[in-house]
Amino acid sequence: MQLPSKLIQDAVEEMAKLPGIGKKTALRLVLHLLNSDKEQTTMLSNALVQMRENVKYCKKCHNVSDEEICNICSSNNRDKSTICVVESIKDVLAIENTAHYRGEYHVLGGIISPLEGIGPSDLSIDLLIERVSQHDSEVKEVILALSPTMEGDTTAFYISKKLKSCDIKLSTIARGVPIGGEIEYTDEVTLGRSIMTRTLFS
Amino acid sequence: MQLPSKLIQDAVEEMAKLPGIGKKTALRLVLHLLNSDKEQTTMLSNALVQMRENVKYCKKCHNVSDEEICNICSSNNRDKSTICVVESIKDVLAIENTAHYRGEYHVLGGIISPLEGIGPSDLSIDLLIERVSQHDSEVKEVILALSPTMEGDTTAFYISKKLKSCDIKLSTIARGVPIGGEIEYTDEVTLGRSIMTRTLFS
Repeated sequence: MQLPSKLIQDAVEEMAKLPGIGKKTALRLVLHLLNSDKEQTTMLSNALVQMRENVKYCKKCHNVSDEEICNICSSNNRDKSTICVVESIKDVLAIENTAHYRGEYHVLGGIISPLEGIGPSDLSIDLLIERVSQHDSEVKEVILALSPTMEGDTTAFYISKKLKSCDIKLSTIARGVPIGGEIEYTDEVTLGRSIMTRTLFS
Repeated sequence: MQLPSKLIQDAVEEMAKLPGIGKKTALRLVLHLLNSDKEQTTMLSNALVQMRENVKYCKKCHNVSDEEICNICSSNNRDKSTICVVESIKDVLAIENTAHYRGEYHVLGGIISPLEGIGPSDLSIDLLIERVSQHDSEVKEVILALSPTMEGDTTAFYISKKLKSCDIKLSTIARGVPIGGEIEYTDEVTLGRSIMTRTLFS
Protein backbone atom coordinates (compact mmCIF):
# COMPACT_ATOMS: atom_id res chain seq x y z
CA MET A 1 0.00 0.00 0.00
CA GLN A 2 1.66 3.24 -1.19
CA LEU A 3 0.41 6.15 0.89
CA PRO A 4 0.51 9.73 -0.41
CA SER A 5 2.19 10.99 2.74
CA LYS A 6 5.32 9.74 4.49
CA LEU A 7 3.95 11.02 7.80
CA ILE A 8 0.81 8.92 7.47
CA GLN A 9 2.90 5.98 6.30
CA ASP A 10 5.08 6.19 9.42
CA ALA A 11 2.09 6.48 11.73
CA VAL A 12 0.41 3.48 10.06
CA GLU A 13 3.57 1.40 10.34
CA GLU A 14 3.98 2.16 14.05
CA MET A 15 0.31 1.47 14.70
CA ALA A 16 0.51 -1.83 12.81
CA LYS A 17 3.22 -3.04 15.20
CA LEU A 18 0.54 -3.43 17.87
CA PRO A 19 -0.75 -6.98 18.24
CA GLY A 20 -3.88 -7.76 16.24
CA ILE A 21 -3.70 -4.49 14.28
CA GLY A 22 -3.02 -5.00 10.57
CA LYS A 23 -2.07 -2.35 8.02
CA LYS A 24 -5.70 -1.75 7.00
CA THR A 25 -6.94 -1.29 10.56
CA ALA A 26 -3.93 0.89 11.34
CA LEU A 27 -4.79 3.13 8.38
CA ARG A 28 -8.39 3.35 9.54
CA LEU A 29 -7.27 4.39 13.04
CA VAL A 30 -4.73 6.90 11.73
CA LEU A 31 -7.26 8.49 9.36
CA HIS A 32 -9.72 8.68 12.25
CA LEU A 33 -7.15 10.63 14.26
CA LEU A 34 -6.46 12.83 11.25
CA ASN A 35 -10.14 13.70 10.97
CA SER A 36 -10.60 14.30 14.71
CA ASP A 37 -9.44 17.19 16.88
CA LYS A 38 -5.69 17.56 17.27
CA GLU A 39 -6.31 17.29 20.99
CA GLN A 40 -7.36 13.66 20.72
CA THR A 41 -4.02 12.67 19.19
CA THR A 42 -2.10 14.69 21.76
CA MET A 43 -4.02 13.17 24.64
CA LEU A 44 -3.61 9.63 23.32
CA SER A 45 0.08 10.06 22.72
CA ASN A 46 0.66 11.72 26.11
CA ALA A 47 -1.30 9.05 27.95
CA LEU A 48 0.75 6.30 26.29
CA VAL A 49 4.11 7.95 26.98
CA GLN A 50 3.16 8.83 30.58
CA MET A 51 1.99 5.30 31.16
CA ARG A 52 5.14 3.73 29.71
CA GLU A 53 7.50 6.08 31.53
CA ASN A 54 5.90 6.28 34.92
CA VAL A 55 4.11 3.03 35.70
CA LYS A 56 5.84 1.33 38.62
CA TYR A 57 5.75 -2.27 39.69
CA CYS A 58 4.68 -2.96 43.27
CA LYS A 59 7.77 -3.89 45.30
CA LYS A 60 5.82 -6.56 47.12
CA CYS A 61 3.71 -8.35 44.50
CA HIS A 62 5.09 -7.03 41.19
CA ASN A 63 1.64 -5.86 40.10
CA VAL A 64 1.54 -2.55 38.21
CA SER A 65 1.01 0.42 40.43
CA ASP A 66 1.34 4.19 40.56
CA GLU A 67 3.00 3.91 43.98
CA GLU A 68 5.86 1.84 45.39
CA ILE A 69 3.32 -0.56 46.91
CA CYS A 70 0.12 -1.29 44.97
CA ASN A 71 -3.33 -0.58 46.35
CA ILE A 72 -4.07 -4.28 46.93
CA CYS A 73 -0.89 -4.85 48.99
CA SER A 74 -1.35 -1.61 50.93
CA SER A 75 -5.02 -2.26 51.69
CA ASN A 76 -6.01 -3.30 55.22
CA ASN A 77 -9.04 -5.18 53.96
CA ARG A 78 -7.07 -7.94 52.27
CA ASP A 79 -6.21 -11.28 53.87
CA LYS A 80 -2.43 -11.19 54.19
CA SER A 81 -2.19 -14.92 54.87
CA THR A 82 -3.02 -15.92 51.27
CA ILE A 83 -1.07 -15.20 48.08
CA CYS A 84 -2.50 -15.99 44.67
CA VAL A 85 0.26 -16.49 42.08
CA VAL A 86 -0.71 -15.37 38.55
CA GLU A 87 1.04 -14.92 35.23
CA SER A 88 0.07 -11.35 34.42
CA ILE A 89 -1.87 -8.27 35.42
CA LYS A 90 -4.74 -9.42 33.22
CA ASP A 91 -5.19 -12.44 35.50
CA VAL A 92 -5.31 -10.17 38.55
CA LEU A 93 -8.08 -8.18 36.87
CA ALA A 94 -9.97 -11.37 35.93
CA ILE A 95 -9.81 -12.75 39.49
CA GLU A 96 -10.67 -9.36 41.02
CA ASN A 97 -13.74 -9.27 38.78
CA THR A 98 -15.05 -12.49 40.33
CA ALA A 99 -15.14 -10.79 43.77
CA HIS A 100 -14.42 -14.24 45.26
CA TYR A 101 -10.88 -13.58 46.47
CA ARG A 102 -9.83 -11.29 49.28
CA GLY A 103 -6.17 -12.27 49.63
CA GLU A 104 -3.08 -10.78 48.01
CA TYR A 105 -1.48 -11.51 44.66
CA HIS A 106 1.90 -12.23 43.22
CA VAL A 107 2.39 -11.37 39.54
CA LEU A 108 5.12 -13.46 37.89
CA GLY A 109 5.31 -11.32 34.74
CA GLY A 110 5.18 -14.39 32.47
CA ILE A 111 5.54 -18.15 32.66
CA ILE A 112 8.52 -20.45 32.13
CA SER A 113 8.72 -21.09 28.39
CA PRO A 114 11.99 -22.51 27.04
CA LEU A 115 10.72 -22.01 23.47
CA GLU A 116 10.40 -18.28 24.00
CA GLY A 117 13.59 -18.14 26.04
CA ILE A 118 11.83 -17.30 29.30
CA GLY A 119 13.48 -18.96 32.29
CA PRO A 120 12.72 -18.74 36.04
CA SER A 121 15.19 -15.88 36.43
CA ASP A 122 13.11 -13.69 34.08
CA LEU A 123 10.12 -13.97 36.38
CA SER A 124 9.56 -12.58 39.86
CA ILE A 125 9.76 -16.05 41.46
CA ASP A 126 12.64 -15.11 43.79
CA LEU A 127 10.58 -12.22 45.12
CA LEU A 128 7.76 -14.67 45.86
CA ILE A 129 10.05 -17.10 47.71
CA GLU A 130 11.46 -14.19 49.71
CA ARG A 131 7.95 -12.98 50.54
CA VAL A 132 6.90 -16.39 51.79
CA SER A 133 10.07 -17.34 53.65
CA GLN A 134 10.66 -14.05 55.51
CA HIS A 135 10.79 -14.67 59.27
CA ASP A 136 7.89 -12.26 59.89
CA SER A 137 5.82 -13.67 57.04
CA GLU A 138 2.10 -14.06 57.69
CA VAL A 139 1.59 -16.22 54.60
CA LYS A 140 -0.21 -19.50 55.29
CA GLU A 141 -1.36 -20.46 51.79
CA VAL A 142 -0.09 -19.96 48.25
CA ILE A 143 -2.64 -20.52 45.49
CA LEU A 144 -1.21 -21.24 42.05
CA ALA A 145 -3.61 -19.72 39.50
CA LEU A 146 -1.68 -20.49 36.31
CA SER A 147 -3.17 -21.51 32.97
CA PRO A 148 -3.50 -25.30 32.58
CA THR A 149 -1.01 -25.45 29.71
CA MET A 150 2.37 -27.15 29.54
CA GLU A 151 4.15 -23.88 30.37
CA GLY A 152 1.75 -23.16 33.22
CA ASP A 153 2.23 -26.64 34.67
CA THR A 154 6.03 -26.36 34.36
CA THR A 155 5.99 -23.04 36.19
CA ALA A 156 3.68 -24.43 38.87
CA PHE A 157 5.99 -27.44 39.34
CA TYR A 158 9.05 -25.20 39.60
CA ILE A 159 7.41 -22.96 42.21
CA SER A 160 6.12 -25.94 44.19
CA LYS A 161 9.67 -27.36 44.40
CA LYS A 162 11.05 -23.99 45.50
CA LEU A 163 8.39 -23.63 48.19
CA LYS A 164 8.76 -27.19 49.52
CA SER A 165 10.88 -26.17 52.48
CA CYS A 166 8.42 -23.46 53.56
CA ASP A 167 5.72 -24.36 56.03
CA ILE A 168 2.73 -23.32 53.94
CA LYS A 169 -0.26 -24.87 52.24
CA LEU A 170 0.18 -24.93 48.46
CA SER A 171 -3.00 -25.15 46.38
CA THR A 172 -4.04 -24.75 42.79
CA ILE A 173 -7.29 -23.46 41.31
CA ALA A 174 -9.77 -26.21 40.42
CA ARG A 175 -9.75 -27.61 36.91
CA GLY A 176 -12.94 -29.15 35.55
CA VAL A 177 -15.95 -28.69 33.35
CA PRO A 178 -16.66 -24.93 33.11
CA ILE A 179 -20.01 -23.73 34.40
CA GLY A 180 -22.40 -23.54 31.46
CA GLY A 181 -20.24 -26.04 29.56
CA GLU A 182 -21.71 -29.28 28.25
CA ILE A 183 -20.24 -32.62 29.27
CA GLU A 184 -20.74 -33.96 25.74
CA TYR A 185 -18.43 -31.30 24.30
CA THR A 186 -15.83 -31.19 27.08
CA ASP A 187 -12.41 -32.49 26.00
CA GLU A 188 -11.48 -35.89 27.41
CA VAL A 189 -8.51 -34.71 29.48
CA THR A 190 -10.61 -32.15 31.34
CA LEU A 191 -13.51 -34.53 31.75
CA GLY A 192 -11.28 -37.39 32.92
CA ARG A 193 -9.64 -35.12 35.46
CA SER A 194 -12.93 -33.70 36.65
CA ILE A 195 -14.07 -37.26 37.48
CA MET A 196 -10.81 -38.10 39.26
CA THR A 197 -10.91 -34.90 41.33
CA ARG A 198 -14.66 -35.02 42.04
CA THR A 199 -15.87 -33.13 45.11
CA LEU A 200 -18.62 -33.94 47.62
CA PHE A 201 -22.09 -32.94 46.44
CA SER A 202 -23.35 -30.12 48.62
CA MET B 1 -13.02 -2.64 35.07
CA GLN B 2 -11.01 -1.16 37.95
CA LEU B 3 -7.34 -0.97 36.98
CA PRO B 4 -4.60 -0.89 39.61
CA SER B 5 -2.94 2.12 38.02
CA LYS B 6 -4.40 5.48 37.05
CA LEU B 7 -1.76 5.81 34.31
CA ILE B 8 -2.83 2.57 32.68
CA GLN B 9 -6.48 3.52 33.15
CA ASP B 10 -5.90 6.82 31.31
CA ALA B 11 -4.00 5.14 28.48
CA VAL B 12 -6.74 2.51 28.09
CA GLU B 13 -9.45 5.17 28.04
CA GLU B 14 -7.67 7.20 25.35
CA MET B 15 -7.00 4.08 23.29
CA ALA B 16 -10.63 2.98 23.60
CA LYS B 17 -11.73 6.24 21.94
CA LEU B 18 -10.42 4.90 18.64
CA PRO B 19 -13.12 3.37 16.42
CA GLY B 20 -13.55 -0.38 16.77
CA ILE B 21 -11.30 -0.56 19.85
CA GLY B 22 -13.17 -1.58 23.00
CA LYS B 23 -11.92 -1.41 26.57
CA LYS B 24 -10.63 -5.00 26.51
CA THR B 25 -8.68 -4.56 23.26
CA ALA B 26 -7.36 -1.22 24.50
CA LEU B 27 -6.09 -2.90 27.68
CA ARG B 28 -4.41 -5.61 25.60
CA LEU B 29 -2.67 -3.01 23.44
CA VAL B 30 -1.60 -0.91 26.42
CA LEU B 31 -0.21 -3.95 28.28
CA HIS B 32 1.63 -4.92 25.10
CA LEU B 33 3.28 -1.49 25.04
CA LEU B 34 4.06 -1.81 28.74
CA ASN B 35 5.83 -5.11 28.13
CA SER B 36 7.74 -3.88 25.07
CA ASP B 37 10.70 -1.54 24.84
CA LYS B 38 10.08 2.05 25.88
CA GLU B 39 11.23 3.03 22.41
CA GLN B 40 8.19 1.45 20.77
CA THR B 41 5.81 3.65 22.75
CA THR B 42 7.90 6.75 22.05
CA MET B 43 8.03 6.02 18.34
CA LEU B 44 4.30 5.32 18.11
CA SER B 45 3.39 8.44 20.01
CA ASN B 46 5.84 10.61 18.03
CA ALA B 47 4.62 9.23 14.70
CA LEU B 48 1.01 10.00 15.63
CA VAL B 49 1.72 13.53 16.84
CA GLN B 50 3.98 14.32 13.86
CA MET B 51 1.33 13.01 11.49
CA ARG B 52 -1.48 14.99 13.11
CA GLU B 53 0.53 18.21 13.34
CA ASN B 54 2.30 18.22 10.00
CA VAL B 55 0.16 16.49 7.39
CA LYS B 56 -0.94 19.01 4.80
CA TYR B 57 -3.79 18.89 2.34
CA CYS B 58 -2.92 19.32 -1.34
CA LYS B 59 -4.00 22.79 -2.44
CA LYS B 60 -5.21 21.41 -5.74
CA CYS B 61 -7.06 18.17 -4.96
CA HIS B 62 -7.37 18.22 -1.15
CA ASN B 63 -5.66 14.84 -0.86
CA VAL B 64 -3.29 14.42 2.09
CA SER B 65 0.29 15.30 1.29
CA ASP B 66 3.61 16.20 2.86
CA GLU B 67 4.01 19.10 0.39
CA GLU B 68 1.76 21.94 -0.75
CA ILE B 69 0.86 19.95 -3.86
CA CYS B 70 0.49 16.15 -3.55
CA ASN B 71 2.61 13.75 -5.57
CA ILE B 72 -0.29 12.79 -7.85
CA CYS B 73 -1.07 16.41 -8.79
CA SER B 74 2.62 17.27 -9.24
CA SER B 75 3.37 14.19 -11.35
CA ASN B 76 3.92 14.63 -15.09
CA ASN B 77 2.71 11.11 -15.81
CA ARG B 78 -0.90 11.78 -14.88
CA ASP B 79 -3.61 12.71 -17.34
CA LYS B 80 -4.56 16.26 -16.34
CA SER B 81 -7.77 16.23 -18.40
CA THR B 82 -9.59 13.84 -16.05
CA ILE B 83 -10.57 14.36 -12.43
CA CYS B 84 -11.97 11.56 -10.33
CA VAL B 85 -14.09 12.88 -7.44
CA VAL B 86 -13.98 10.71 -4.30
CA GLU B 87 -15.20 10.96 -0.74
CA SER B 88 -11.98 10.25 1.15
CA ILE B 89 -8.30 9.38 0.95
CA LYS B 90 -9.21 5.71 1.41
CA ASP B 91 -11.04 5.83 -1.94
CA VAL B 92 -7.95 7.32 -3.62
CA LEU B 93 -5.91 4.41 -2.29
CA ALA B 94 -8.50 1.87 -3.43
CA ILE B 95 -8.62 3.30 -6.97
CA GLU B 96 -4.81 3.66 -7.14
CA ASN B 97 -4.56 -0.03 -6.19
CA THR B 98 -6.58 -1.01 -9.27
CA ALA B 99 -3.86 0.58 -11.52
CA HIS B 100 -6.68 1.35 -13.99
CA TYR B 101 -6.74 5.10 -13.56
CA ARG B 102 -4.06 7.58 -14.63
CA GLY B 103 -5.92 10.85 -14.15
CA GLU B 104 -6.03 13.17 -11.16
CA TYR B 105 -8.29 13.10 -8.10
CA HIS B 106 -10.40 15.44 -6.09
CA VAL B 107 -10.99 14.47 -2.45
CA LEU B 108 -14.22 15.92 -1.05
CA GLY B 109 -13.42 15.09 2.57
CA GLY B 110 -16.86 13.60 3.19
CA ILE B 111 -20.28 13.45 1.59
CA ILE B 112 -23.38 15.56 2.03
CA SER B 113 -25.26 14.11 4.97
CA PRO B 114 -27.93 16.28 6.61
CA LEU B 115 -28.31 13.71 9.41
CA GLU B 116 -24.69 14.18 10.45
CA GLY B 117 -24.85 17.91 9.80
CA ILE B 118 -22.48 17.81 6.81
CA GLY B 119 -23.48 20.29 4.13
CA PRO B 120 -21.84 21.22 0.79
CA SER B 121 -19.85 24.01 2.47
CA ASP B 122 -18.07 21.48 4.71
CA LEU B 123 -16.67 19.71 1.65
CA SER B 124 -14.11 20.88 -0.91
CA ILE B 125 -16.74 21.22 -3.65
CA ASP B 126 -15.98 24.92 -4.27
CA LEU B 127 -12.35 24.02 -4.87
CA LEU B 128 -13.46 21.46 -7.46
CA ILE B 129 -15.69 23.95 -9.29
CA GLU B 130 -12.85 26.47 -9.30
CA ARG B 131 -10.46 23.85 -10.64
CA VAL B 132 -12.79 22.92 -13.49
CA SER B 133 -13.97 26.40 -14.42
CA GLN B 134 -10.56 28.17 -14.41
CA HIS B 135 -9.92 29.79 -17.80
CA ASP B 136 -6.68 27.77 -18.24
CA SER B 137 -8.31 24.52 -17.09
CA GLU B 138 -7.33 21.40 -19.05
CA VAL B 139 -10.15 19.34 -17.50
CA LYS B 140 -12.32 17.53 -20.03
CA GLU B 141 -13.99 14.91 -17.85
CA VAL B 142 -15.08 14.65 -14.22
CA ILE B 143 -15.73 11.12 -12.94
CA LEU B 144 -17.94 10.87 -9.88
CA ALA B 145 -16.72 7.88 -7.86
CA LEU B 146 -19.02 8.16 -4.86
CA SER B 147 -20.57 5.29 -2.93
CA PRO B 148 -24.00 4.28 -4.29
CA THR B 149 -25.83 5.30 -1.12
CA MET B 150 -28.42 8.00 -0.58
CA GLU B 151 -25.73 10.43 0.65
CA GLY B 152 -23.44 9.58 -2.25
CA ASP B 153 -26.23 10.11 -4.78
CA THR B 154 -27.21 13.42 -3.16
CA THR B 155 -23.62 14.63 -3.34
CA ALA B 156 -23.29 13.49 -6.96
CA PHE B 157 -26.52 15.31 -7.85
CA TYR B 158 -25.34 18.49 -6.13
CA ILE B 159 -21.99 18.43 -7.93
CA SER B 160 -23.62 17.66 -11.29
CA LYS B 161 -25.87 20.72 -10.90
CA LYS B 162 -22.90 22.91 -9.96
CA LEU B 163 -20.90 21.71 -12.97
CA LYS B 164 -23.78 22.10 -15.45
CA SER B 165 -22.50 25.37 -16.83
CA CYS B 166 -19.00 23.98 -17.43
CA ASP B 167 -18.20 22.47 -20.79
CA ILE B 168 -17.05 19.07 -19.55
CA LYS B 169 -18.11 15.44 -19.72
CA LEU B 170 -19.54 14.24 -16.40
CA SER B 171 -19.48 10.49 -15.78
CA THR B 172 -19.99 8.12 -12.89
CA ILE B 173 -18.37 4.77 -12.15
CA ALA B 174 -20.39 1.76 -13.34
CA ARG B 175 -22.80 0.12 -10.93
CA GLY B 176 -23.66 -3.54 -11.47
CA VAL B 177 -23.09 -7.10 -10.38
CA PRO B 178 -19.59 -7.28 -8.83
CA ILE B 179 -17.09 -9.59 -10.52
CA GLY B 180 -17.16 -12.94 -8.72
CA GLY B 181 -20.66 -12.14 -7.43
CA GLU B 182 -23.57 -14.47 -8.12
CA ILE B 183 -26.67 -13.20 -9.89
CA GLU B 184 -28.88 -15.29 -7.61
CA TYR B 185 -27.65 -13.43 -4.53
CA THR B 186 -27.40 -9.93 -6.00
CA ASP B 187 -29.94 -7.50 -4.56
CA GLU B 188 -32.80 -6.59 -6.84
CA VAL B 189 -31.96 -2.89 -7.15
CA THR B 190 -28.42 -3.62 -8.36
CA LEU B 191 -29.58 -6.41 -10.65
CA GLY B 192 -32.40 -4.33 -12.11
CA ARG B 193 -30.04 -1.47 -12.77
CA SER B 194 -27.39 -3.74 -14.28
CA ILE B 195 -29.97 -4.92 -16.84
CA MET B 196 -31.11 -1.38 -17.61
CA THR B 197 -27.54 -0.16 -18.10
CA ARG B 198 -26.29 -3.26 -19.96
CA THR B 199 -23.24 -2.78 -22.15
CA LEU B 200 -22.33 -4.33 -25.53
CA PHE B 201 -20.79 -7.79 -25.24
CA SER B 202 -17.16 -7.61 -26.31
